[in-house]
Amino acid sequence: MGKIKVSYYLTEQLEKLGISDFFGLPGDYNFKLIESVEKNPSTNWIGCTNELNAGYAADGYARVKGYGALITTYGVGELSAINAIAGCFAENIPVIKIVGVPATKFIEQNTVLHHNFEHPDYYAFEKAYSSVVETTAYLNKTNAKSEIDRVLSVFVNQKKPVYIAVPVDICDMEIDNNPNFDIAKSDEKNLGAAVSHILELINDSKKPVIIADVLVERFLAVEEAKKFIEKSKIPVTTFLMGKGLIHSDYEGFIGTYLGKYENQSVYEYVNNSDCVMSIGVIYSDLNTFGFDIGFNPSDNIQIFGTYTIVENYKYENILMADVLQALYEQITPKKIAVPQREKTFFVSKSNTDEKLSAKYIFPRFQDFLLPDDIVFSETGIISYGVAAMDLPKGANLYNQVLWGSIGWATPAAFGASIAAKDKRVVLLTGEGSHQLTACEISSMMRYGTKPVIIVLNNDGYTIERLLSDDPMDEFNKIAQWNYSKLPEVFTGDVWTAQARTNNEFDSVLTEAKEQQKTKMCYIEIFADKMDIPDLTKKIIECKLTNKAAKTV
Amino acid sequence: MGKIKVSYYLTEQLEKLGISDFFGLPGDYNFKLIESVEKNPSTNWIGCTNELNAGYAADGYARVKGYGALITTYGVGELSAINAIAGCFAENIPVIKIVGVPATKFIEQNTVLHHNFEHPDYYAFEKAYSSVVETTAYLNKTNAKSEIDRVLSVFVNQKKPVYIAVPVDICDMEIDNNPNFDIAKSDEKNLGAAVSHILELINDSKKPVIIADVLVERFLAVEEAKKFIEKSKIPVTTFLMGKGLIHSDYEGFIGTYLGKYENQSVYEYVNNSDCVMSIGVIYSDLNTFGFDIGFNPSDNIQIFGTYTIVENYKYENILMADVLQALYEQITPKKIAVPQREKTFFVSKSNTDEKLSAKYIFPRFQDFLLPDDIVFSETGIISYGVAAMDLPKGANLYNQVLWGSIGWATPAAFGASIAAKDKRVVLLTGEGSHQLTACEISSMMRYGTKPVIIVLNNDGYTIERLLSDDPMDEFNKIAQWNYSKLPEVFTGDVWTAQARTNNEFDSVLTEAKEQQKTKMCYIEIFADKMDIPDLTKKIIECKLTNKAAKTV
Repeated sequence: MGKIKVSYYLTEQLEKLGISDFFGLPGDYNFKLIESVEKNPSTNWIGCTNELNAGYAADGYARVKGYGALITTYGVGELSAINAIAGCFAENIPVIKIVGVPATKFIEQNTVLHHNFEHPDYYAFEKAYSSVVETTAYLNKTNAKSEIDRVLSVFVNQKKPVYIAVPVDICDMEIDNNPNFDIAKSDEKNLGAAVSHILELINDSKKPVIIADVLVERFLAVEEAKKFIEKSKIPVTTFLMGKGLIHSDYEGFIGTYLGKYENQSVYEYVNNSDCVMSIGVIYSDLNTFGFDIGFNPSDNIQIFGTYTIVENYKYENILMADVLQALYEQITPKKIAVPQREKTFFVSKSNTDEKLSAKYIFPRFQDFLLPDDIVFSETGIISYGVAAMDLPKGANLYNQVLWGSIGWATPAAFGASIAAKDKRVVLLTGEGSHQLTACEISSMMRYGTKPVIIVLNNDGYTIERLLSDDPMDEFNKIAQWNYSKLPEVFTGDVWTAQARTNNEFDSVLTEAKEQQKTKMCYIEIFADKMDIPDLTKKIIECKLTNKAAKTV
Repeated sequence: MGKIKVSYYLTEQLEKLGISDFFGLPGDYNFKLIESVEKNPSTNWIGCTNELNAGYAADGYARVKGYGALITTYGVGELSAINAIAGCFAENIPVIKIVGVPATKFIEQNTVLHHNFEHPDYYAFEKAYSSVVETTAYLNKTNAKSEIDRVLSVFVNQKKPVYIAVPVDICDMEIDNNPNFDIAKSDEKNLGAAVSHILELINDSKKPVIIADVLVERFLAVEEAKKFIEKSKIPVTTFLMGKGLIHSDYEGFIGTYLGKYENQSVYEYVNNSDCVMSIGVIYSDLNTFGFDIGFNPSDNIQIFGTYTIVENYKYENILMADVLQALYEQITPKKIAVPQREKTFFVSKSNTDEKLSAKYIFPRFQDFLLPDDIVFSETGIISYGVAAMDLPKGANLYNQVLWGSIGWATPAAFGASIAAKDKRVVLLTGEGSHQLTACEISSMMRYGTKPVIIVLNNDGYTIERLLSDDPMDEFNKIAQWNYSKLPEVFTGDVWTAQARTNNEFDSVLTEAKEQQKTKMCYIEIFADKMDIPDLTKKIIECKLTNKAAKTV
């Protein structure tokens, strides 16, 4: 089996999970960790402009490739990235956070080193992280091998972020090169029982429906889910977070669930179902349009990554992919009429010189998308704008509906561009969010990626104008930037454009389609500060009505 | 006494501490907190480009004004800022972190809201913060008033960051408007005993020396310290973090302590002293040049913010300002020859077309400084470059020698510009650090501040090139930006310039002196990627020698 250095072992095992790119920034305590990435012929170091962005990039990468990794220095570096990792925890993205910490002797002597406090606490940052990851480990001379194996097992089993702190001297320590992971397997008895229980409910039902959501992708069960869904012939919808999981042309797809606000036929179908099968669904406020569902998910069927609930009975230790595979093998196809689906967006062929607005932006954006595109949509009104959109076959939409950290989408799109070099990455962001992380455009250019970036400039935080008491409140203003000049700062060959009217947007997208083949495209589009998609309008009106009702 | 809303009470009490500007970003859970700032005629809301930058800005503000405040939204916003607050904890900067959290009913029902996890934990972020602040509070219906009073008392007494979470509904709750703070007073008995003990040691000493450092400023004891130092006639030095506390022209000032590397006479004087009096000194690795001191501080005299140690005996509960005031009153001036001070830097009058390098940059920068300037120096080689610099009367230098988070200086300088509108703020940063937070230039422009910013572009992380095994390692490269184009992106009237030679740097600084009177100046200067100040060169050589000695 041979011996191997700790840092090299860690990198090798992660590479086996498909992580060929490690994001982060160097610092004087993590050189050896980065070196192990650079020296491994199958892995690359991807330097970012700051640690939060690096964390978001690792998140975007993991969404596409299944797993991601982030390396920072101690204290200052790791804390800067904690929001990105918390987002991975919320949204079930397996990103490993690796931090280089001072050598063991300093920890033992509690030396007052930089990146620590006047009264040092060498475990303070691990403690902070323990709130936002599945598990943490702090390597030392005796536990290094076993702790790496334990943490990576959790990483694979739970598909959640994990944290490993590696003291400088431990990086170089030699350990046995015999990976010993404890990879979860389904409990066969529970699996059989759950599957029988589910099939019984489906067989007895007259109007079953499947809601497929984001955790299907996270638990790497997309193929199994699709096979089961297709064979079962049960009508299927997706929630916002799972959008793109079922492509728009699939005959059993009834459309995205948008609450009572849009896609009414989906709303009625789902809420009149006598058997709602939730596969990997996150029932959060925004994903359910304000808990706008007329059933109790656990009264029905809920398949999660490592357990399943049927009629409120929890079957422990069974893996989503196994449950779906068994269901696929045993299901008798249902004969159910799939409701006719209304197409939400139609692009008007006759463009005009009308001022650009949501009414045109989102339909035209939908029209711009190609099969297999990787689309990132930012939090805010953008996420409502794309909610009703149709996606071409193989295209996938990534958003951050649960965690909702503005600024996430730009670096996440960078991470995805590194993960999927052969695919087109398209980013749609509002300028309010973009300001938080815009510098990662620089990394996109540095690493030669060619995303299409569309920045919607609507003069401030529009979504917050809608939510706050006074839409014109000063605090929702932001600095006005000349966005399309950003690539000039970052130096490189980028195609930039601006659009203020429907016609201009149309021309710009037509041109971008060509330009993107050879270079990055950075497009700034303008809309009125209170211009919002119809869906947002309806939600806000409903909120205001409720508020008024309460105050009466 | 009347009633007042919780958020208005909190703002009012902070305003009484001198906080007239609150930094942060809006989010749907903190509108009411921001509103209380905007509605108070004595306080302003300062919107930043992201939360980490806002935290750094509050830090810079607090360094100048004594206290600072940061308001963010829940989860995503607060976690993004945690590194800035941890830096305040390390460096003893009182910044209050206020976060708007969801309404009480959601907390009680553990609702799956955005900015939380799939299995929500409403206390996870407070828990994360508890590692990096002095105390935390999570307000509710019964504890709001008493917890605000308790937390603000700790804030004032310890001069450390504190954390308050305010649910949306609690913001509007009315409480009694009768502040009830528990402000620490010195224990009179301990005070008397400590002062006698100190005076005894001083009187018995033949060659006493004072080291004045950063905590003197943090504990608002600058005037008391100066009075005592001047009356005592004891020679005084400063450490790196306290640079600027004693201005260069003071007759008792023997120069900055730079270990054995430079200012040799200071090194010898201090290490041959028979009574080293440390006032507010942080004995960290970089502040002591690798613990390069030949005495044990606690064998001597150490005056801290809330306690004093004399000959290893700890006198509890006595305040720095009170100790210094009593010493001032009771000290008998010493008659000690102050060693002749060598000036470290001389600016050559005859400039040349020589390529710009550290040899010229730092002396010329010293020459550029004016009395009362507020100078920010970034971590990295910059902090060594300015270490040996003389500061004109009233000028103050701010650095982050203990926490050392690269990127800090740019937003911190913005915060200081807001705090001290009548003073000139000068920022000297390396481009590697600047990339992490450069967007805060936008906020400087938005709020009409007029700092002079000098960005030293040396093509990567020079300090890390020096510390890593292979200086030309890929990971120390960064994206090349056209820095002086940044202000064009941010739109506004900024004077920009570049300098590549000594002559050019000289002209640019001469011109900046004039331009700064009416506008912000943004200057990019170029040096070789391995060009470093003499001090850094000596430290690195010494490290390498030690390393070589160890491997033999």
